[in-house]
Amino acid sequence: MLLAAIGLAFAVEGMWEPAQLPSQAVGLARAGFKGNAVMLSRLDSAPLGAVVSLGGCTASFVSPDGLLVTNHHCVTGYLQQATRDGENLVDSGFLARTRSEERSVGQSGRVYVTTAIEDVTQQVVGRFPKKVKDARRAELIEERTKSLVASCEKPGGVRCRVVSFYDGAVYRRITQRELRDLRLVMAPPDSVGSYGDEVDNWQWPRHSGDFAFVRAYVAPDGSFAPYAVENVPYTPPMHLRVAKRGPQPGEFVMVAGYPGSTDRWRTALEMERAETRDMPRDVEELKAVLEVYAAVAAADPKAAVTLEPARLGASNVLLNLEGTLEGYRRGDVVGRARAREAGLIDWISADPSRAHYRTTLEELRALVRAGDGTYERDFLLDRLRAASPTLHAAETLVEWAGEQRKKDAKRRAGFQARDRARLHDRMVDLGRRLEPASERRLVTRTLGQLAARADCPPELKAWLGLGAGKDPGTQVAAAVERLFASPVLAREEVRLRLLDLSLSKFPMDDGFLSLARALAPVRAVQRKESRAREGAAARLRPALVEAERAFDPGRAYPDANGTLRVTFGTLQGYAPRDGVYHTPQTTLEGVAAKAGPWPFDAPTALLDAIKARRYGPYADAVLGSVPVNYLSDLDITGGNSGSPTLNAAGELVGLAFDGNIEGVASDWFFDARVARSIHVDSRYVLWYLDAVADADALLRELGRTPAF
Amino acid sequence: MLLAAIGLAFAVEGMWEPAQLPSQAVGLARAGFKGNAVMLSRLDSAPLGAVVSLGGCTASFVSPDGLLVTNHHCVTGYLQQATRDGENLVDSGFLARTRSEERSVGQSGRVYVTTAIEDVTQQVVGRFPKKVKDARRAELIEERTKSLVASCEKPGGVRCRVVSFYDGAVYRRITQRELRDLRLVMAPPDSVGSYGDEVDNWQWPRHSGDFAFVRAYVAPDGSFAPYAVENVPYTPPMHLRVAKRGPQPGEFVMVAGYPGSTDRWRTALEMERAETRDMPRDVEELKAVLEVYAAVAAADPKAAVTLEPARLGASNVLLNLEGTLEGYRRGDVVGRARAREAGLIDWISADPSRAHYRTTLEELRALVRAGDGTYERDFLLDRLRAASPTLHAAETLVEWAGEQRKKDAKRRAGFQARDRARLHDRMVDLGRRLEPASERRLVTRTLGQLAARADCPPELKAWLGLGAGKDPGTQVAAAVERLFASPVLAREEVRLRLLDLSLSKFPMDDGFLSLARALAPVRAVQRKESRAREGAAARLRPALVEAERAFDPGRAYPDANGTLRVTFGTLQGYAPRDGVYHTPQTTLEGVAAKAGPWPFDAPTALLDAIKARRYGPYADAVLGSVPVNYLSDLDITGGNSGSPTLNAAGELVGLAFDGNIEGVASDWFFDARVARSIHVDSRYVLWYLDAVADADALLRELGRTPAF
Repeated sequence: MLLAAIGLAFAVEGMWEPAQLPSQAVGLARAGFKGNAVMLSRLDSAPLGAVVSLGGCTASFVSPDGLLVTNHHCVTGYLQQATRDGENLVDSGFLARTRSEERSVGQSGRVYVTTAIEDVTQQVVGRFPKKVKDARRAELIEERTKSLVASCEKPGGVRCRVVSFYDGAVYRRITQRELRDLRLVMAPPDSVGSYGDEVDNWQWPRHSGDFAFVRAYVAPDGSFAPYAVENVPYTPPMHLRVAKRGPQPGEFVMVAGYPGSTDRWRTALEMERAETRDMPRDVEELKAVLEVYAAVAAADPKAAVTLEPARLGASNVLLNLEGTLEGYRRGDVVGRARAREAGLIDWISADPSRAHYRTTLEELRALVRAGDGTYERDFLLDRLRAASPTLHAAETLVEWAGEQRKKDAKRRAGFQARDRARLHDRMVDLGRRLEPASERRLVTRTLGQLAARADCPPELKAWLGLGAGKDPGTQVAAAVERLFASPVLAREEVRLRLLDLSLSKFPMDDGFLSLARALAPVRAVQRKESRAREGAAARLRPALVEAERAFDPGRAYPDANGTLRVTFGTLQGYAPRDGVYHTPQTTLEGVAAKAGPWPFDAPTALLDAIKARRYGPYADAVLGSVPVNYLSDLDITGGNSGSPTLNAAGELVGLAFDGNIEGVASDWFFDARVARSIHVDSRYVLWYLDAVADADALLRELGRTPAF
Repeated sequence: MLLAAIGLAFAVEGMWEPAQLPSQAVGLARAGFKGNAVMLSRLDSAPLGAVVSLGGCTASFVSPDGLLVTNHHCVTGYLQQATRDGENLVDSGFLARTRSEERSVGQSGRVYVTTAIEDVTQQVVGRFPKKVKDARRAELIEERTKSLVASCEKPGGVRCRVVSFYDGAVYRRITQRELRDLRLVMAPPDSVGSYGDEVDNWQWPRHSGDFAFVRAYVAPDGSFAPYAVENVPYTPPMHLRVAKRGPQPGEFVMVAGYPGSTDRWRTALEMERAETRDMPRDVEELKAVLEVYAAVAAADPKAAVTLEPARLGASNVLLNLEGTLEGYRRGDVVGRARAREAGLIDWISADPSRAHYRTTLEELRALVRAGDGTYERDFLLDRLRAASPTLHAAETLVEWAGEQRKKDAKRRAGFQARDRARLHDRMVDLGRRLEPASERRLVTRTLGQLAARADCPPELKAWLGLGAGKDPGTQVAAAVERLFASPVLAREEVRLRLLDLSLSKFPMDDGFLSLARALAPVRAVQRKESRAREGAAARLRPALVEAERAFDPGRAYPDANGTLRVTFGTLQGYAPRDGVYHTPQTTLEGVAAKAGPWPFDAPTALLDAIKARRYGPYADAVLGSVPVNYLSDLDITGGNSGSPTLNAAGELVGLAFDGNIEGVASDWFFDARVARSIHVDSRYVLWYLDAVADADALLRELGRTPAF
């Protein structure tokens, strides 16, 4: 009987571009979709028109008053920004009982509404000069991209991006409206929102209340202004309705959102490098970073609070990497990629007119191997910046000042006039993330590793004062002393002032600024090398994609790239191993069964409501309880967090918030047997608002009458 | 769909006495039994006539030539006994390709065939003198029991026991034939037989090949002689047939065997003591013992081998206790026992003629509380003997010599003429278990704990030389020095010689013998106290059982007591927690998926056969693979290990070998939702014999033609 249930699984791989959905109408209908695939593909219609990006997460409008629902873990940073003295909103949760109690999420809060997607392939990669060098090709692509962006953006919140699809075979220009006043409405306490925390992360069975509500505001005249007390709630052109009936096992569900990145079109050699070098190296580094965070946090509770988001992020990535490596091993990802590539090579060999594809593949492989020699040095140079938010800010400011000497169109992407506001906000937000004890340890570690290398860049050697007769350890220690003696960039007003100064006016004696200037030519060389690789890739990869799509027409959707996608499937469990089946739903009883010390410190009010079985209209008839989380076999990845999960009628039935550990390697090679996404059931959200949080106004705004 | 599958569960609690089976005919038929419940109850008919005890484990005859099948973990001791220099049969496994290669399992190998079960309640507890004291009552019971045994036993292998059922409400005399020449036929290597070892112990999913074959031999004249080279295979009156078709989920299965002990008739107060005192104390002690074993084993590989069975046993008991405590907590065993008892008290109160039951219950509670004061001291005195096999032997020899001065009928049970052969064999076997380094550490520890107590028995204080001005630590250290200086009991010939010497001829200077003599009066007092408690219990418990059975006629079977029982149910999975379902079968693919370092070091030959999918006629059509282990909801406990699992036609479909951790608290209070037994599928046994072990002769003896 179990097997029959498992046999129903559709396991539909695919993160479809909106415009592709009509071509998937048969698959959609087979999975249970009831609507019109053409309507589903439209950006100016529900549901897609209600689905927005928060920059890294997804959210959706759920009321005519600009109310957005997303994941709790997407608003952790907002909660920190909104925390006032004596509060800890991450721990306590937050509920604005009136509009006036809604708090700004801080300068970096953004809502991006996608309004247009245009094909600009010809404008980006058409008509290159003959015999153009790879580096120049990359430059031209960047220039054309910038020009396409510039001709598209408009004041008042119209932002544009040009994005590569299918490894550069296709380019699209994405137009988005940018809302800049975002306010916290409701978030459950951490003990609900990330119930189970790192113990349950990527795991099933799951019992997370990973939801939160924010609201978009605009100026009284309707313009997309930054936070101002007189701003008013935004009226979105469309919003999602919460389904009256919850989803059932085997039923159709779809997710619309902004998946960040997948690597399913990589060559087998790249997958092999990822498994044997890149991911193990990242794992090693993350473990070291987490050890430093743990040591610092143990000694200093205030530092622990500051470091918490970084720790959570690092531990999440670590788990993901370890799961991916395990999935690589178990799913024999490299073996399967090699087999697929062998099939492709056979297909190429079968027809002499395809011989150029063979050359393309060989060149791509050579390109991968060419990076092997400098891999570790480049890794450490990247880590140095990642380990030090202060250095990162210093390098950004130095580069910003450098680029300001050029005409705007000639400036590097990210350093144009259009980017100033964002950089400004980032410089403000940095203050909340600075934690000098851990930063110092990490910088010492990475500088030490670089100093010990034969290929340490001479500019860095000179800055460290390395040379004959000098002990690298002593030099690094002295350099770190200089850096952290009294860094001027720890002060917000300095960071902001430097955005308007020319390089010659920069404080010459600050360690971080001096290191940033020393590293500038190193970064320039790295960028040049990287641009040459990019140019080569831009030349080679589209040809390979062309070959692969001709060889296997089933490979019909591009890798995730942060643009709006739709994926669909059904509520389905899976067999994680022989003798075990993960059933597709969890219930409130499971929340109570896990309750105990952190990370299972569920609030008493919630446990009491479960004990009293105050379930009201939110209970599922079959389960006899309120469903908490569920599994589906649709295809999501990071960036989909907070995405609305919709039923066959396009109504909201939950939020995607995680994948299972058995499925994380699917970012490289989709494994339909075990890849599952994890959702919070909309009934748990409503039940929590009603029975625990007593958030009656919010419930009414969602179209529900409180039952308790 | 999952819920429907779970809903089919029968979960039939009950370890039925054979004579009770006709009364269970309706339940048997409902569960799927096809045969005649009256025939099923007969000892002189298959299947029960083929089911034997090995003393602690169960086995069953599976050929007309005395072939027995049981669990691998039941023959670990046999394998050690049969190991010769340069071999390690536990690691390597064993296969006798001809009868002449079959090896004796050692002196302690016994097969007990139950031939008669008689009610002797009146003879044991009828007609006590008026106002008999409790201690005297216990003595009378022992005397009557001994006399009932003496009048029953006969030379040539007829052994009898008188056993209490329903807490002394019923006594039965069990007659058994005792076979004494047992030989190893086949055992898989440890890496198959206990695949997963302590990691998987009590766990599901499970992939253990926990089976082995031995053969019973008799003298050429058919008499039940000890091992002799000229002995011939025994011809049992009946044997089980291996089913042609394997068991399927939802199908009827039953297990016949010798469950050792359960405590389901205990009072709520006893269950509370077990949860809050007895089990936590045992857990603490076992952890300390395992630490000592680990330290000694780490320093000395030879000691590690000697200690392995003891380590395995202790770790198994520890896991069981921890699981039981968890089950107590989760299943609220004490709460439910209290509720049941409250119901009983209400029932008692409802009718004045039942008032004496209330008195009985109060007296029983008082009896439990009376033991509280001496609990820890008695615990340590027991531990002292358990910690030291040498002391145990010394005490046995001292007591044996003491009892030999009395007439045989007056001797304590266990020290009569009929017990001599067994004691002799035990003295021989002891040599294999002695490991002085761990014994020394454990004796030091327990003597130290006793010496520190105010209620340390004066005889022990005197022996330790404790007194004013003496440091207990120093005295204990000196005493341990005396014990281990040169213990004569380490030599087998000394141990055997002492069985024939009078106490006065015992070597006076040996530490262990001197400690044993010092402890003799302490043990005598303990025995006297214990006899008084037993006498009181013999008076009180049957009355309480009477009340409970009148109050709840559903409580229709007695606690396990090492006698033959039958339990039945169906192949069923279970939900260990919210969101997870344990499916009822595992497969060869699961064996391969777990393969890795110990305890998952599956043999290459086995993994190769799985890789090649050499499954032949042993594959299950639905699973598409050979089933390895399965779950059922029938009711077993320790002692059932090795029990044949039978289908509705009474054919062998597997062997019971474990319970799940969620179910171990069911020894106290059956939890039908989660209590499951774990079986090895007969198809895995046959497949292994054929595809991996190449044991063609054995397969043919089981009525199968080799497929490979």
